[in-house]
Amino acid sequence: MKDEVVVIEENSKAAMQRRGMNKGASIMDLIFRCVAIIGTLGSAISMGTTNETLPFFTQFIRFKAQYDDLPTFTFFVVANSVVCAYLVLSIPLSIVHIIRSSARYTRLVLILLDAAMLALLTAGASAAAAIVYLAHKGNARANWFAICQQFNSFCEHTSGSLIGSFASIIVFILLIFLSASALARS
Amino acid sequence: MKDEVVVIEENSKAAMQRRGMNKGASIMDLIFRCVAIIGTLGSAISMGTTNETLPFFTQFIRFKAQYDDLPTFTFFVVANSVVCAYLVLSIPLSIVHIIRSSARYTRLVLILLDAAMLALLTAGASAAAAIVYLAHKGNARANWFAICQQFNSFCEHTSGSLIGSFASIIVFILLIFLSASALARS
Repeated sequence: MKDEVVVIEENSKAAMQRRGMNKGASIMDLIFRCVAIIGTLGSAISMGTTNETLPFFTQFIRFKAQYDDLPTFTFFVVANSVVCAYLVLSIPLSIVHIIRSSARYTRLVLILLDAAMLALLTAGASAAAAIVYLAHKGNARANWFAICQQFNSFCEHTSGSLIGSFASIIVFILLIFLSASALARS
Repeated sequence: MKDEVVVIEENSKAAMQRRGMNKGASIMDLIFRCVAIIGTLGSAISMGTTNETLPFFTQFIRFKAQYDDLPTFTFFVVANSVVCAYLVLSIPLSIVHIIRSSARYTRLVLILLDAAMLALLTAGASAAAAIVYLAHKGNARANWFAICQQFNSFCEHTSGSLIGSFASIIVFILLIFLSASALARS
């Protein structure tokens, strides 16, 4: 009888410990989501406000570069906005996981949606990166010229706005891992 | 005493059922991995063998297009090859999961690596898609001309090789979900 009590106590101790670790993982999850919100929102705003008018112009043409001159940059802004909106909507669920740290099926749903959003965010960021690379270096074989020599500030702005997006990609991979590790412990 | 036996029987029935579902998920996992291997390998080979020489040439220049004229396509081939190699290496672990369907920590490792590979594959595929789009449509504002009018077969080949890569992205999202659902049940 005494042995049984000891076993039950040890079991409940282990369960308490697991629950504590899951609570910690859930709090990390919430913090990571906030970081990713800042990253994607910053990227979307930074790219969306990119706009350069060159100081010289002819009678008919004004040299102006805007992010939506290139469809890929428009896709980048849309992808970052969608992911940012998703992250904001997922915050309540993340808070629920802190309170009910043994939740399973809601975590599973989050993992699926996180993976889909990871793919969307990566698609936007890397397509934009391919175009930014082309704008910087050009391509002699395809006769595509580097436009960064003229539109210097435009190029700097677009390159900089990729940073938040790529940081958020890493955060998403960590988010998926955190949710999965909580599932493995529960 | 009889009640206890019934409870234990029901518990073991539920456990058996869960184990059966996990075995099914592991078999699906193995099949999906094989599909993704075919997809990424096909994409890498298809892009890597793209090569077009135009039937006309001048005294000095021969018009030739190869995949490695564009660094983005080289990245696409490398990304697809790396992901394909990873998938082949993960097959033994996938088979272990069919036999030991309650494994937890190896599944966790697979989820982390799968998420990282999903990001790498998406980056390669979407960067290549951005360049293919540019090759088809060009961009008047940046003075980049559509090269597909001259290099028709080159463009068709590169566009086609994206399909396997994008299909593999969807397979990877399903793989992550399958592993996570097996963790939720175990």
